[in-house]
Amino acid sequence: MTEQIFITDVSPRDGLQNQAVAVSTDSKLRLIDKLVQAGVESVEATSFVSPSAVPQMADAAQLVPLAAARWPRLRTSVLVPNLKGLERAHAAGAREIAVVLCATETMNRKNVNMGLQQALDASEQTLVAAHELGIRTRAYVAVAFECPFEGITPLAEVLRLARRMHAAGAAEIVIADTIGAAAPAQVKERMNAIRDVVPLDRLAIHLHDTRGMGVANAWAALESGVRRFDASVGGIGGCPFAPGAAGNLATEDLVLMARQSGFSSGISLDGLLDAVAFAEEQLQRPLGGRSSAWLRRERAMRAPQMSADAANPA
Amino acid sequence: MTEQIFITDVSPRDGLQNQAVAVSTDSKLRLIDKLVQAGVESVEATSFVSPSAVPQMADAAQLVPLAAARWPRLRTSVLVPNLKGLERAHAAGAREIAVVLCATETMNRKNVNMGLQQALDASEQTLVAAHELGIRTRAYVAVAFECPFEGITPLAEVLRLARRMHAAGAAEIVIADTIGAAAPAQVKERMNAIRDVVPLDRLAIHLHDTRGMGVANAWAALESGVRRFDASVGGIGGCPFAPGAAGNLATEDLVLMARQSGFSSGISLDGLLDAVAFAEEQLQRPLGGRSSAWLRRERAMRAPQMSADAANPA
Repeated sequence: MTEQIFITDVSPRDGLQNQAVAVSTDSKLRLIDKLVQAGVESVEATSFVSPSAVPQMADAAQLVPLAAARWPRLRTSVLVPNLKGLERAHAAGAREIAVVLCATETMNRKNVNMGLQQALDASEQTLVAAHELGIRTRAYVAVAFECPFEGITPLAEVLRLARRMHAAGAAEIVIADTIGAAAPAQVKERMNAIRDVVPLDRLAIHLHDTRGMGVANAWAALESGVRRFDASVGGIGGCPFAPGAAGNLATEDLVLMARQSGFSSGISLDGLLDAVAFAEEQLQRPLGGRSSAWLRRERAMRAPQMSADAANPA
Repeated sequence: MTEQIFITDVSPRDGLQNQAVAVSTDSKLRLIDKLVQAGVESVEATSFVSPSAVPQMADAAQLVPLAAARWPRLRTSVLVPNLKGLERAHAAGAREIAVVLCATETMNRKNVNMGLQQALDASEQTLVAAHELGIRTRAYVAVAFECPFEGITPLAEVLRLARRMHAAGAAEIVIADTIGAAAPAQVKERMNAIRDVVPLDRLAIHLHDTRGMGVANAWAALESGVRRFDASVGGIGGCPFAPGAAGNLATEDLVLMARQSGFSSGISLDGLLDAVAFAEEQLQRPLGGRSSAWLRRERAMRAPQMSADAANPA
């Protein structure tokens, strides 16, 4: 039996936002194209935040309409920090937005220069306003395991905020291990608790691979019934405002593990390798998840068949 | 609550056997010393195989008595392919041996130039003879998930062989994903089945990290009740006779994941980093598991305290 999982590739936003090399709008669109070619049906495309804080995302208003015109059926969510960001996203034609609510006071201040209560209010207002505009919504509960400033995040607080985001109408509530500090036992404990306050079909998890436990944590989440995942092709990523955050869980690592474990994502591993190769050219450094060396070798070994496939892409 | 796990560090044997750089007996002893300093209580020290097949292990008869004299309480198992190997190991003073039984016909032929039935007979004879000599025993069931020559290994065959090794008196039956092909769903399925034929206190798992799923597989095994693990510090390893095998599951990755998940191994992560640094000098290349970059950064950040600890190692 094959069960479906649903992956949002966040490399165009979470992946690129912290990269030293400036990436052009055209290159971002080509990266998204590689992902679409691989079978990805949902990407986090950009964010409507201050260009001075995140220069890499300064072209959000240009990118969104181009992506919408080119891939009318692709889900392309965009991060918005508040109502003003929502207005800009809406003006650009965004059909899906995401709000980021950090689960600790300090992390909200570092991330959006607001306290937790103020950030919660802003997130709820933004979700309600987006709903009125007919825009689909995602709500991140960030640093949901550990905060770089406050240590272990109380589970009760994560549950409270997840419940609030659900009540505010978020179509997807994304529990984020923003700095990659979680281990599988914590993922199991927390996702088992959170699924009691958020229906599984609205629950997603966003993992980083800082401590080499990204894939193990994804498996723990699968075992808890989670079927929606964020991942970033090539593991591109890291959070500019969270000390110690390394790359995101690599999409190819997740797809491989899920496939071998009986879950279908609809995403081609060869297609993801093409996207990694493209991102390496753009970012001028080696990329790839924990499985990439093996995936590349395995692909090279069936190279003759690959050529045949390429000639006749049925 | 903290539960115990028990780790055998196989870097002196499985780790070194396939390395291009020749490692002296003295350096091997110094590597073992680093592991002992880190709190490791069991190592796979060497193998009594043909020096022409595995030149790196040609000093087995010299290494074993030196290790036994230096660490009287350390478990130091040595691989033996047959009765003749057992005789050599016994003559050298070995107190623990391991036999390797591959679960497929072809892999046995590649590994020990015997068919499966012959290899099974040899393993059983060796286990019985070792028991009579008062030597502790481990029995590997290798390629227990997938064989590079025969594909997916039938679970029924793994169960049959595990049962036979248990009946032949092996103190520990080690289920090995020799080429690192397993995913967590397979580990869960197989370990849940195997624990019905081998008591959990005699069951161990030996994982490789070829596809980046080593830690996830270890978590799946923990969830199945397995508490005994092979791992190799720095992820040093690979099988010379199995195409496509990459490094072993890194001891530091396992210790970190287990610790954060509520399991104690008695092993110090700082001590393991010292062992990795030593192995890097010896093998003249970068080593380290998936968590090493983070572990090193985290250690550097508390450097002042580290110095105090070093001055007063309580």
